[in-house]
Amino acid sequence: MNKRIVLHYISRAMLFGAALFLLPALVSIYYGERDVILLFVIIALAVAIISTPLAILKPKNTNMYNREALVTAAFLWVIFPVIGALPFYFSGAIPSFVDSVFESISGFTTTGASILSEVESLPRGILFWRSFTHWVGGMGVLVLLIAILPSSSHAMALMRAECPGPQVGKIMPKGKNSAAALYIIYAVITAVVCVLLFAGGMPLFDSVCTAMGTAGTGGFSVRNGGIADYNSAYIEGVLTGGMIAFGVNFSLYYFILIKRFKDVFKNGEMRVYLILIAIATAIVGVNIYPIYGSVGKSFRYSVFQVASIMTSTGFATADYCTWPMLSQVILLILMFIGACGGSTGGGFKVQRVIITYKSAMKSLKKIVHPNSVNLVKSDDKAMDNETVHGVLNYLVIYIGIVLFSIILLSVNNADFTTTVSSVVTCLNNIGPGLGGVGPTQNFGFYSDFSKCVLSVDMLLGRLECLPLVILISPSVWRKKF
Amino acid sequence: MNKRIVLHYISRAMLFGAALFLLPALVSIYYGERDVILLFVIIALAVAIISTPLAILKPKNTNMYNREALVTAAFLWVIFPVIGALPFYFSGAIPSFVDSVFESISGFTTTGASILSEVESLPRGILFWRSFTHWVGGMGVLVLLIAILPSSSHAMALMRAECPGPQVGKIMPKGKNSAAALYIIYAVITAVVCVLLFAGGMPLFDSVCTAMGTAGTGGFSVRNGGIADYNSAYIEGVLTGGMIAFGVNFSLYYFILIKRFKDVFKNGEMRVYLILIAIATAIVGVNIYPIYGSVGKSFRYSVFQVASIMTSTGFATADYCTWPMLSQVILLILMFIGACGGSTGGGFKVQRVIITYKSAMKSLKKIVHPNSVNLVKSDDKAMDNETVHGVLNYLVIYIGIVLFSIILLSVNNADFTTTVSSVVTCLNNIGPGLGGVGPTQNFGFYSDFSKCVLSVDMLLGRLECLPLVILISPSVWRKKF
Repeated sequence: MNKRIVLHYISRAMLFGAALFLLPALVSIYYGERDVILLFVIIALAVAIISTPLAILKPKNTNMYNREALVTAAFLWVIFPVIGALPFYFSGAIPSFVDSVFESISGFTTTGASILSEVESLPRGILFWRSFTHWVGGMGVLVLLIAILPSSSHAMALMRAECPGPQVGKIMPKGKNSAAALYIIYAVITAVVCVLLFAGGMPLFDSVCTAMGTAGTGGFSVRNGGIADYNSAYIEGVLTGGMIAFGVNFSLYYFILIKRFKDVFKNGEMRVYLILIAIATAIVGVNIYPIYGSVGKSFRYSVFQVASIMTSTGFATADYCTWPMLSQVILLILMFIGACGGSTGGGFKVQRVIITYKSAMKSLKKIVHPNSVNLVKSDDKAMDNETVHGVLNYLVIYIGIVLFSIILLSVNNADFTTTVSSVVTCLNNIGPGLGGVGPTQNFGFYSDFSKCVLSVDMLLGRLECLPLVILISPSVWRKKF
Repeated sequence: MNKRIVLHYISRAMLFGAALFLLPALVSIYYGERDVILLFVIIALAVAIISTPLAILKPKNTNMYNREALVTAAFLWVIFPVIGALPFYFSGAIPSFVDSVFESISGFTTTGASILSEVESLPRGILFWRSFTHWVGGMGVLVLLIAILPSSSHAMALMRAECPGPQVGKIMPKGKNSAAALYIIYAVITAVVCVLLFAGGMPLFDSVCTAMGTAGTGGFSVRNGGIADYNSAYIEGVLTGGMIAFGVNFSLYYFILIKRFKDVFKNGEMRVYLILIAIATAIVGVNIYPIYGSVGKSFRYSVFQVASIMTSTGFATADYCTWPMLSQVILLILMFIGACGGSTGGGFKVQRVIITYKSAMKSLKKIVHPNSVNLVKSDDKAMDNETVHGVLNYLVIYIGIVLFSIILLSVNNADFTTTVSSVVTCLNNIGPGLGGVGPTQNFGFYSDFSKCVLSVDMLLGRLECLPLVILISPSVWRKKF
């Protein structure tokens, strides 16, 4: 373990994090929220002062392997949300520190689970910061750092450690350029969504915050009633399109830019992702038709909720906890599946579902026809057994974390539906669950211990388990290996 | 596909199944239940007449590969429960045919889920048959057939197709001898449990039926109130010991017989199985202490319920649905884990849990230390990658079936807890679940469609998915390969 290089990158990221506070400070200046301006500036200065010395000194040994990158990502994702919680706590917006950290982790991990039942009375600067964490966390803190810092040989390892999906696409030869390209695409689509929302009559502040919540597939809203408050089919349409767009692997947008359309159409993951959204929308739409009594309304509510859950955004325009069990179960399963790899969405990822499915089918075939060749293909390319095995092992770790979290959370003695869906929605970075944590409820009633469990789940989900699991593995910390 | 050999074995098994009806007929003679005697004899004769011609003719081509064995097991396990349902239906004990088949499948698969709320008024012959299906289904119809029929080269393939667990232990060089040894051990332990129950004051009829239900890890009781009715700590103690004993790999008893004690102690699966029971008992015991207010009572109820659920028996002496959520969640997770491979118990099996756990740990280590060797060991022997991969793929198929079944069952619109736990309890061959299918409830309220879904789940669980999945795979039925 090269601890120096880990420390170096963490302090550089923190220095950069300090700069991020200036944006909500500007918002507060605009709205004349004096106390909040001061708060943001003080926090920014304090973080900068602590991290500058370490960030300037470059370590002698600059070796960075997988484990160093994973440990960097893990530490950063623990430190960042704690710093991000400070404005919530010191502004008095959230009186409890555990609650503040929960809200901040929920923001950075783009979960969108909230302990607040009332948000409209909060200062604008604080609300902006809350939604801004979604935007930064969605594409990744490290990815942003790589995009901005001078080119580094560690770029790919760091990106792999933070980016979701079983195979991180290297869209350009240099990691720095890939990161920059990803962030530019990300910013442009966010701006488009924002403009479209504003054009539909949403206030500017709401448009900016909602667009950032959509881009990160986060789900925080600046209204107590959420998106349903705007009661506009146009806005819901824009957001549905936006959510689906941000759930797609970002490499595909790059391929469109450089006119490699064939690579886009050949992408099996996107096809399956869109087909699943279509099937789920159809089933849920038919299933809830008796409630709404109109095809248009049923479809409108169905497609929005399906897109919101599958992309792990978590916006809601209807209380799906009152829907028939079939619809609820389908939404719960979509929570597990999640969006595409390489997107800002959470969940197990469509690509992993495809790989596990193909692997299982091949193994059945092998039993019936023992001499058949056992190769799993993805987009016409045969996948090496190591990748397939890795995905299967990830499934095991994922299930283990789900079960262990459910045990820990059940100590809180909430009902079964609430307990299970809380874990599922936090681990998959969605936001609302079923039962007591449905779209009209919040996570405020949980004990501090339960909130900590769910916070760890959100981090595990965002980082896809590995960095955090490795952080607590003793063999990483042994001097010799 | 050699269809002739499949047909040959199925008809021999049916002929043998006809003979099984003579046992409940004898019970009915003893209790003077004339109508029921006649019914059993007529069914036995009808089955015998249909199957004799095919059973006598030996096919020319006697090749039997994995696929033929799997298809034989699959067909047999569909046909047998339907025949087994006839006494329930024609005696009028269960007026609906779907319900009769559900009850019969639940018996043969040793699930013990019932649609009956009242059993004490049923004829003794019928009640005996109901419990007898547990005993036959527990160790397996084909295994019994192999044990009795003259030695055959197909014995091992057929046993593998029917026996649970990732690796079927070949305890003797010849399949026939292995099957016979297993059944003798099985019968002896059943007899011991029966004698111990009778010695504790349980009526003889109840002792025989309860012992068979314990041996098959089934769970049908001959009392409306179940085992709680006897209200005897001694009886509960005997059953706890019995259930745990039948959840162990039967090869171990054979090793004890031939004094290979080292192989017993070296068995990692048994150790983990016993440790899990101990840990779960301790947690649940502490958790329910406030309800019962006495250490003795808490421990008595805890160990019985834990053993019953983990071995997939499904007897109950307390309504655990009234216990705190932590206890309920632990029981639900034990449902998934299940008993040891090569036992009569259901579930995913302890051995598979161990293999998946070790595989996941190795893969984590591989990420941190890329040059480490990636071998999963079981009982000090390195397991080949094919077996590990097979277990992981089985996990995928298993999860797929769980999710798909939950979707189908949710159409019935029961609450979430009931829907999920119904699938879990049926697929893992346990019996009672949580919520609306808890230990004091039954499955009678489900629609016929839902009962069919759960029936298929019970079969999938008993046969560990493969035979039935292969049955519907088109490539098996192609002439050429």
